[in-house]
Amino acid sequence: MTYRAGVVGAAGFAGIELVRLLLRHPEFDLALATSDALAGTLIAQAYPAFSGVTDLAFSTHEDADFSACDVVFLAVPHKAAMGVAPALIASGVTVVDLSADFRLKDPAVYEQWYAPHTATDLLATAAFGLPELTGEELAAAAARRAAGEAVLVGCAGCYPTATSLAAAPAIRAGLVDAVAPVVADAISGVTGAGKKATERTHFCFANENAEAYGVGTHRHTPEIEQILGLKDRLVFTPHLAPLNRGLLSTVTLPMAPGAKTTTEELVALYRDFYAESPLVTVMDAGVQPRTASVAGTVRAQVGVVAHPAGVIVATGAIDNLGKGAAGQAVQCANIVFGLPETCGLEEIANPV
Amino acid sequence: MTYRAGVVGAAGFAGIELVRLLLRHPEFDLALATSDALAGTLIAQAYPAFSGVTDLAFSTHEDADFSACDVVFLAVPHKAAMGVAPALIASGVTVVDLSADFRLKDPAVYEQWYAPHTATDLLATAAFGLPELTGEELAAAAARRAAGEAVLVGCAGCYPTATSLAAAPAIRAGLVDAVAPVVADAISGVTGAGKKATERTHFCFANENAEAYGVGTHRHTPEIEQILGLKDRLVFTPHLAPLNRGLLSTVTLPMAPGAKTTTEELVALYRDFYAESPLVTVMDAGVQPRTASVAGTVRAQVGVVAHPAGVIVATGAIDNLGKGAAGQAVQCANIVFGLPETCGLEEIANPV
Amino acid sequence: MTYRAGVVGAAGFAGIELVRLLLRHPEFDLALATSDALAGTLIAQAYPAFSGVTDLAFSTHEDADFSACDVVFLAVPHKAAMGVAPALIASGVTVVDLSADFRLKDPAVYEQWYAPHTATDLLATAAFGLPELTGEELAAAAARRAAGEAVLVGCAGCYPTATSLAAAPAIRAGLVDAVAPVVADAISGVTGAGKKATERTHFCFANENAEAYGVGTHRHTPEIEQILGLKDRLVFTPHLAPLNRGLLSTVTLPMAPGAKTTTEELVALYRDFYAESPLVTVMDAGVQPRTASVAGTVRAQVGVVAHPAGVIVATGAIDNLGKGAAGQAVQCANIVFGLPETCGLEEIANPV
Amino acid sequence: MTYRAGVVGAAGFAGIELVRLLLRHPEFDLALATSDALAGTLIAQAYPAFSGVTDLAFSTHEDADFSACDVVFLAVPHKAAMGVAPALIASGVTVVDLSADFRLKDPAVYEQWYAPHTATDLLATAAFGLPELTGEELAAAAARRAAGEAVLVGCAGCYPTATSLAAAPAIRAGLVDAVAPVVADAISGVTGAGKKATERTHFCFANENAEAYGVGTHRHTPEIEQILGLKDRLVFTPHLAPLNRGLLSTVTLPMAPGAKTTTEELVALYRDFYAESPLVTVMDAGVQPRTASVAGTVRAQVGVVAHPAGVIVATGAIDNLGKGAAGQAVQCANIVFGLPETCGLEEIANPV
Repeated sequence: MTYRAGVVGAAGFAGIELVRLLLRHPEFDLALATSDALAGTLIAQAYPAFSGVTDLAFSTHEDADFSACDVVFLAVPHKAAMGVAPALIASGVTVVDLSADFRLKDPAVYEQWYAPHTATDLLATAAFGLPELTGEELAAAAARRAAGEAVLVGCAGCYPTATSLAAAPAIRAGLVDAVAPVVADAISGVTGAGKKATERTHFCFANENAEAYGVGTHRHTPEIEQILGLKDRLVFTPHLAPLNRGLLSTVTLPMAPGAKTTTEELVALYRDFYAESPLVTVMDAGVQPRTASVAGTVRAQVGVVAHPAGVIVATGAIDNLGKGAAGQAVQCANIVFGLPETCGLEEIANPV
Repeated sequence: MTYRAGVVGAAGFAGIELVRLLLRHPEFDLALATSDALAGTLIAQAYPAFSGVTDLAFSTHEDADFSACDVVFLAVPHKAAMGVAPALIASGVTVVDLSADFRLKDPAVYEQWYAPHTATDLLATAAFGLPELTGEELAAAAARRAAGEAVLVGCAGCYPTATSLAAAPAIRAGLVDAVAPVVADAISGVTGAGKKATERTHFCFANENAEAYGVGTHRHTPEIEQILGLKDRLVFTPHLAPLNRGLLSTVTLPMAPGAKTTTEELVALYRDFYAESPLVTVMDAGVQPRTASVAGTVRAQVGVVAHPAGVIVATGAIDNLGKGAAGQAVQCANIVFGLPETCGLEEIANPV
Repeated sequence: MTYRAGVVGAAGFAGIELVRLLLRHPEFDLALATSDALAGTLIAQAYPAFSGVTDLAFSTHEDADFSACDVVFLAVPHKAAMGVAPALIASGVTVVDLSADFRLKDPAVYEQWYAPHTATDLLATAAFGLPELTGEELAAAAARRAAGEAVLVGCAGCYPTATSLAAAPAIRAGLVDAVAPVVADAISGVTGAGKKATERTHFCFANENAEAYGVGTHRHTPEIEQILGLKDRLVFTPHLAPLNRGLLSTVTLPMAPGAKTTTEELVALYRDFYAESPLVTVMDAGVQPRTASVAGTVRAQVGVVAHPAGVIVATGAIDNLGKGAAGQAVQCANIVFGLPETCGLEEIANPV
Repeated sequence: MTYRAGVVGAAGFAGIELVRLLLRHPEFDLALATSDALAGTLIAQAYPAFSGVTDLAFSTHEDADFSACDVVFLAVPHKAAMGVAPALIASGVTVVDLSADFRLKDPAVYEQWYAPHTATDLLATAAFGLPELTGEELAAAAARRAAGEAVLVGCAGCYPTATSLAAAPAIRAGLVDAVAPVVADAISGVTGAGKKATERTHFCFANENAEAYGVGTHRHTPEIEQILGLKDRLVFTPHLAPLNRGLLSTVTLPMAPGAKTTTEELVALYRDFYAESPLVTVMDAGVQPRTASVAGTVRAQVGVVAHPAGVIVATGAIDNLGKGAAGQAVQCANIVFGLPETCGLEEIANPV
């Protein structure tokens, strides 16, 4: 038996990646893809990678028959998702949301960074979708869904995914100081800036350039702090570099007083931590993750070094649209629907 | 039942792409991957996209047990393949060759561009691997293999594939002048220049640059002339542009005396020509192929325009490592082994 | 004595390159830079390369005091320039126009490709700005300006410049057939697509892609035909590749009946042709131009090959914003004002 | 009067950039350029950006007549420079060294990271070349040279330059904690990896990729620690991104106990600090430096933010070959020879 899936907000970069993943998924059938802006346009016209592949057109949200869907993926902007999800859940459709609306457990924190939350009931029951770190939440959601309930998953953001996968094993092992700031400097490809054509995303401004942005103000800060338990002490600085897909987060973690470790011990610790996670590769000591080695996939590569200055430098590489967005959403859906978590997902990047 | 496959010369760019494709293929199992230069090295160490994916190491050619293979792909340099293929065929292994050694039907032409041919018997029986244009040769090879014979396929090169897919429908329909030169100006990504680290492939020289090379001397010239019947009147000029994967060939075909046509008629003609070819998409009138829209796949996009100067401008876009090399080789193997020609092959490129 | 210069339409890519060139020019002082869209904005805010360099802000066209200028460069869209130039000329200001408005000698041809021409008197007296090929026109304009007249130069476009520099020596030497089509396939960097943020210029669509565009319809066609005398027989196909600056035109010229030549003879012919042109480098036989080797400069590199199929393959590389737009405009202004033609212009590209 | 300049190790990326800068410098004449590997080869053949620009060929070190030079720039590898400099100084030639050999004041530190130092006498008298921070050392060297002495400048490395320009004003103002680690995560373009063609610098591996390298082991660590007084508490992690030129260092500085400041105060402090430094631009509050905005120049852009987590995030952008190597070396030479420090140096980057 296959499941019928819909994508809301399918014309954006995360949405269209969902379309690609669902078109090639053996257990989910893509039933509808909405985009109010492009309604009536063939997907293949907006994104010519689909020429000769699918005749599906974008539909309006209003015209979409969600009742025929088993699961709907929301790839709409922050603040829009919390307006859409309740009706879907109420009608018995499981929802996997890629926006920030169902990530922050505390509505007050959400309000501080976004707006007053308008679906706090759903927020309270949402599972946080970062399977390697929140497996229990997702397993519980899967059990509820198996029992006939429509469930909601709020998937982790791209920076939080890479940063948390890199930092969590060290923090959860008690190796990291409980007071000092943690520094996460991350580099994202330009798909992370979205589909909108702006000066920022113009080829001629983004190409041959590296720059920081959102210093001290990026909205992924509270999400990372929540996952890692770093309340008010994360220094997160994102950067833009001239590549399409790829996100690398370099996390500098001050060691707890008295903690001593070696790179080899850290690698062993990390491998143990991710022993049941088929999509996370912990690199050998001395080898660093490469974003190109996970581009187009739902994999993550993680590296870790014991630094002579008394800190741990952990690095995480993902595809921001793959493990950082659409791929992870499908991974979560796989789990919630009782499928193997890697079902239908590409696991091998282009070697070059 | 699955088949066991080997890759000879697996450490080069076409070879490693074969490794990737075979690792994810449902009917071919990757049994061995040779590289004399990297023998003993883990594939994942040479190409970190395979970290966490496979524990296979490269072996020497000498140590490889080809008798356990149903099919062997040769991704070795020109002139080396004709030294390797005969023994494999003799031992009953079907061979799919990606080099130029079994493409040129006339040994004299091969000798003119490469060296004296040392396996002319095999050359005489080799099927030319460009399925959309040589389907009968491949069907005959499949029949022979089904009857227990080890067969040899010499796959088309990257430039010949894109150029011929773009030009063949017009030429075979008799629309093209039989005397005047045909001009093919093509652009290739840098993977086409191979794995060897040279000044040419150094990031800092290839980046932000476009240049022509091999003007009047490129070895793909006789191959394209053979496929299209353009003896001594192809002007083929390849160019290098700063992208990893992708090849676009723009072919200017002078119309036959008296021929008249419109872009719409040409598009219809092309669509009819490729009606049975699931991997070739003929673009709508007014839409041009994009290499990014086929990167990572085995698809081709073809465009065609009736130009006011009395010529046809046909364009073909492929991934030089996909439809232009490893992907096409697997497509040919699929056909020869009686599988659906798209079996195990990626058909949808990343939308961005 | 220095001259005062203004730039109209200074916020676009050609306009801002003019700003850069004039700020570092020893004989022209940048007096004003207009942009109705960005009026009041600091140049350094719109283009941070000017941070710490200049405090100049864009002004409106209406507010600009052109009477204080000796020369005004027009970097406005086609059809706008012919509306602006007459008043400037009438007020005694010399004008160097970068648009297409004063390039096509025949108003009927202009009307066919653009619109009815509204300044045909000026068009009749305009000098065509491609100094290596129209030196006499520019010398005459310089003489008129020295005599106190305000003169108008209509600078060649980017594709016409590269294509004509590559093809003119062979054509003018009578080596090229007078009837057969000439094919120019050209590759441009993305600055050629302009500053407007569109899907076409979005990093994620332009990056890792090559494509043709405007096949059979590009407006540079009549301009190239005019320069080279190729009425209705130029097949010009432009392509976009993922680089910022750089334009390469590969021109295939069928030889005249009976013409015979070698690459070495062609190189000698070309070197003789450009002996007095300090900004054109004819490459050695066997060496091809590279766009990266002229990026940021006003130089051109030209290569030429006698091809065995009886054609000449000539290639020309320029920076589309340099020799193809702003740099050439300043070169023309230098000539018209009696300065050395290379005055203030960068002649050496970054080696890497 | 002009000075005669030589470049030793002119075929590498820093060396060839020196060649470019000296060819266009009004006061230094390029007299010789050595490369033992490419001796006899025309510069224009190795780097076609010089085609039509210079007929100079590389010479061997042995054949070079340094006695005719007023100044020699050393662009040789670490450990080689200390073998070459003493004889030059002894013969009365002023030396500007781009290697690490004369940067670390303490020979024991040099030995720890490189090798035993073989020219400790010269090391003791060398001026450290980072003019904005070591102006007094350079002024003293200029005075000695004016008095007839041959002097030695050891120029700062690329990462140390960007990192120190970003961090120094805050540290020297006493705003930074004296004990806690300082984190510098930096991104470099691929020219920083040098001219040697390796897998690391192969276009197809570097393109579309971001990765960290040398984590905890990079040799620029002690140099940055020396400049900033951060003995054993710098966590420096360099990264490679797919651009040719450009280096961005993001420095996270924990504030001293009790220190309080705002971004606006920091910007004012930084502007005051660099008031006499024409080549450093401090960005407005809320604006971040861009590497593209300084590429090809000897400028630096610096940004600074007071971060809510109680740290200062300072960012510095340079061209690693410009302000980070050759440009800074010429800037130092200008100072030592009593010329304006910006003499002959490009100050405006390409706007796009």
